[in-house]
Amino acid sequence: MLNPDMLRSRFDPVTGEIAGARAVRRHLSDLRGCFADSQAYEVALAAGNPLIYSVGAVEPADGEGDLHYGLGLLLPGRIGNEYYLTKGHLHAWRPAAEFYFGLTGEGVMLLEDEATGESRIVPLSPNGVVYVPGCTAHRTMNVGTTPLTYLGVYPAKAGHDYSAIAKNSFRCVVIERDGKPAMMKRKDLLK
Amino acid sequence: MLNPDMLRSRFDPVTGEIAGARAVRRHLSDLRGCFADSQAYEVALAAGNPLIYSVGAVEPADGEGDLHYGLGLLLPGRIGNEYYLTKGHLHAWRPAAEFYFGLTGEGVMLLEDEATGESRIVPLSPNGVVYVPGCTAHRTMNVGTTPLTYLGVYPAKAGHDYSAIAKNSFRCVVIERDGKPAMMKRKDLLK
Repeated sequence: MLNPDMLRSRFDPVTGEIAGARAVRRHLSDLRGCFADSQAYEVALAAGNPLIYSVGAVEPADGEGDLHYGLGLLLPGRIGNEYYLTKGHLHAWRPAAEFYFGLTGEGVMLLEDEATGESRIVPLSPNGVVYVPGCTAHRTMNVGTTPLTYLGVYPAKAGHDYSAIAKNSFRCVVIERDGKPAMMKRKDLLK
Repeated sequence: MLNPDMLRSRFDPVTGEIAGARAVRRHLSDLRGCFADSQAYEVALAAGNPLIYSVGAVEPADGEGDLHYGLGLLLPGRIGNEYYLTKGHLHAWRPAAEFYFGLTGEGVMLLEDEATGESRIVPLSPNGVVYVPGCTAHRTMNVGTTPLTYLGVYPAKAGHDYSAIAKNSFRCVVIERDGKPAMMKRKDLLK
């Protein structure tokens, strides 16, 4: 049966809101351990606890071939030299891929192959699309001066696994260097 | 391994082109049998063979959890009272769902439950999203006066089955009535 309520949704690419959909909101205090410069993090947190990002989701069905999509809003800013970022995740069902479609602002995605640790950064901007293959940890950074919004589409059965990232973090960080995003190894930044 | 070529693509929401991707182009002559008013179709075809729509696709990988996306461009116009349309299809792997994201113009999607024949029309417009559940035939109409463009995201293993539609067509048609799109049964239109 074609349930009309599940067939249609609307989103606002500027505010990052999906009409009628729940959204998770992450403030700076929710991101403890995510930024490489923990001292800069504590200084920033002492000064306030701003919203860093929100993610809403549309989940029409959960069958084998079904899909979900999310809408992310990531605000501009840095902790030390490191851009504001999402926690990042792997899919609980590792083969699940995801497409990201840039809507507003200028972002970068950090991809890390779980098996090899190989890392890459890929730009995410309006009318640009990033493909996240299966078995690949992914995180988004806002590297511009305005809010970044984007759509993510993934298999309904993908699931989100935050624990592997929370335990080991990403091997690389994305920092501003000479006014541009650059990727470097976390251990080299901490030297 | 993270192959850089598969990680990134760019599209133009106005021209309906994906940079570097192949596109299928359907002209009026390719749509014989799709419109209910075959006399109006022959008259239109005698006057010319315009492009009706094009679809490009990005297919980074074909594994179990992979995804593909397409970009459709559907021009405005009518054959009799029936709006320009795509051939429509079912997914060869029936459980596969699909998300459509409207980019430009004003469209309508016709959905038909394969098992029951239940039909619905759902608007497709900028920042609007249509969910096509599995086992549902779907076709797009341009109901506006400017080109309609949209993204479609689907499981890599979905496949396209045009044959069921070509054999039986959709049970319903979408026509302009009092300046607005309306759905009616094909057999009633032909009376």
